[in-house]
Amino acid sequence: MTKKAVILLSGGLDSATSAFIARKDIGKRGELHALSFDYGQRHKRELQCAQLLGTALEVESHTFIKLDLGLLVSTALTSRDIEVPSQGVTEEIPSTWVPQRNSIFLAMGFALAEDVDADSVYTGFNAVDYSGYPDCRPEFVERIELGLNFASKRFVTTGRGFSIVTPVMYMTKAETIFSGAKLEVPFELTWSCYKGEDKACGVCDSCRIRLKAFEECGMEDPIEYA
Amino acid sequence: MTKKAVILLSGGLDSATSAFIARKDIGKRGELHALSFDYGQRHKRELQCAQLLGTALEVESHTFIKLDLGLLVSTALTSRDIEVPSQGVTEEIPSTWVPQRNSIFLAMGFALAEDVDADSVYTGFNAVDYSGYPDCRPEFVERIELGLNFASKRFVTTGRGFSIVTPVMYMTKAETIFSGAKLEVPFELTWSCYKGEDKACGVCDSCRIRLKAFEECGMEDPIEYA
Repeated sequence: MTKKAVILLSGGLDSATSAFIARKDIGKRGELHALSFDYGQRHKRELQCAQLLGTALEVESHTFIKLDLGLLVSTALTSRDIEVPSQGVTEEIPSTWVPQRNSIFLAMGFALAEDVDADSVYTGFNAVDYSGYPDCRPEFVERIELGLNFASKRFVTTGRGFSIVTPVMYMTKAETIFSGAKLEVPFELTWSCYKGEDKACGVCDSCRIRLKAFEECGMEDPIEYA
Repeated sequence: MTKKAVILLSGGLDSATSAFIARKDIGKRGELHALSFDYGQRHKRELQCAQLLGTALEVESHTFIKLDLGLLVSTALTSRDIEVPSQGVTEEIPSTWVPQRNSIFLAMGFALAEDVDADSVYTGFNAVDYSGYPDCRPEFVERIELGLNFASKRFVTTGRGFSIVTPVMYMTKAETIFSGAKLEVPFELTWSCYKGEDKACGVCDSCRIRLKAFEECGMEDPIEYA
C-alpha cells in the first residue's frame, strides 16, 4: 500500500525540514499532500517559498487555504498596528502569537488526511525556539491529536487513527538546519523574517535566531538580507 | 464583571436554540460574540438566517469567516456532484458529513473567545439526531476542549480555561423546538434544508426531521416549503 502523509508547509525552516523528513519516512514512492495557509500573515514570501518547496518535494497535491484570522484576533503577525518584536526572545508569550493557529491548521490537516486516507500529519512544531507558544508544546500535541481523532470517521469506524508527527520538536534551530542539510533541504527556498519585505530584515527575532543557527552550523544562510 | 460568551451560529434550529440559551445564561447585559462560517455550503440561506438571528440576539459582535472546505474534502454539503440524502437517517455516517468541520469551528471559536476574553463557546452540537456524526458526540467535545485549552495562552498562564457548552446535546429535535419556543426563538429565522433553494424542499433528511419535530410539538413550522 502506498504510504501517504499530509505535511503542513509554511515555508519556514522548521516545516521545510519536517517535510523533507516526511519524504524520507514515506519513501520516494509515498504520497505527500501539502497544506499551506494564507492567513493574512505579513510575510507573503513565506507562501511563495511553500509553493516552491512543494515542487522540490514532488508533492502529490498542494492545497492553499485562505483564511482571514485577522477577523478573529489582533496580533503582530497580521496587523500593521502592532510592532514586530526585535528585543530578543523572552519567557513571555510574544505579540506575534496567533491564538489557536496551530489547532486550526491541524484540524484542517486532519480533514485532508481523512480525505486522502493518509496516516500522519507532519508539522514543524518546535518547543525549543518557540518555548513561549503554548500550541507548540508536546502537551498540546498529545491532547489535540486525541481530540481530533475522536472527530474522525475513519478512527471511529475502523480504529485506524491519525498521528501528528513533530520531527523537529526538540531540536534547536541549529540542529534543525544540521538535519535539514543532510536531507538536502533547499534552504534558499525557506523564509523566516517576520517583516514582509523583499529581503529578510536580519533584525527581527526570527531573523536573528536563524542567522545565529546557521553560524553555529558553520554554514552560510543562502537567502539575501537587507 | 460582564459575562461573555462566544456562540457558533449556523442559522440552524440547534445553534439558534443554543444561542438563546446562552443569552439567558449570561443575562441581558452579558456580551454575546457570534461566529458564523461560510464554508461553501449549498444552503446559503442558513447564513442569512445566522445574520438575522445575531440581530435578534443583540450580539456584541458577529464575525463571518469565509472558508473553502471544498478544497480539503469532497462532501454532499459542498459539492454539487454528490446527491443529498433523502432516504432517511441510518446508523451510518452520512455523505453530508464534513470531516473535522466542528473541530475547525471550535478552534476558531476558542481563538475568538481568547481575544474577547469570554469563558465559554456555545454550540448546537446534538448527539441524538446526528448520531452518525463523530464530531457531535460528547466524547469528542470533552477531548477537544482539553486539547484547545492546552493551546490557550490564558489557560496556560492563568489556569482560567474555556468551556464548550452544548445545551441541546441530548435533546431530540422536538425537545429542542420545545425549549426554544419557551425562550421565544424566532424559528422563522432558522433554516434546516440541505438544498440551496428559496423555499425548503421538505424532502431531504434535514427537512423531514424538522417537520416531524414541529408536528410532535403540536406546532406549525413558520418557514415556507416548496
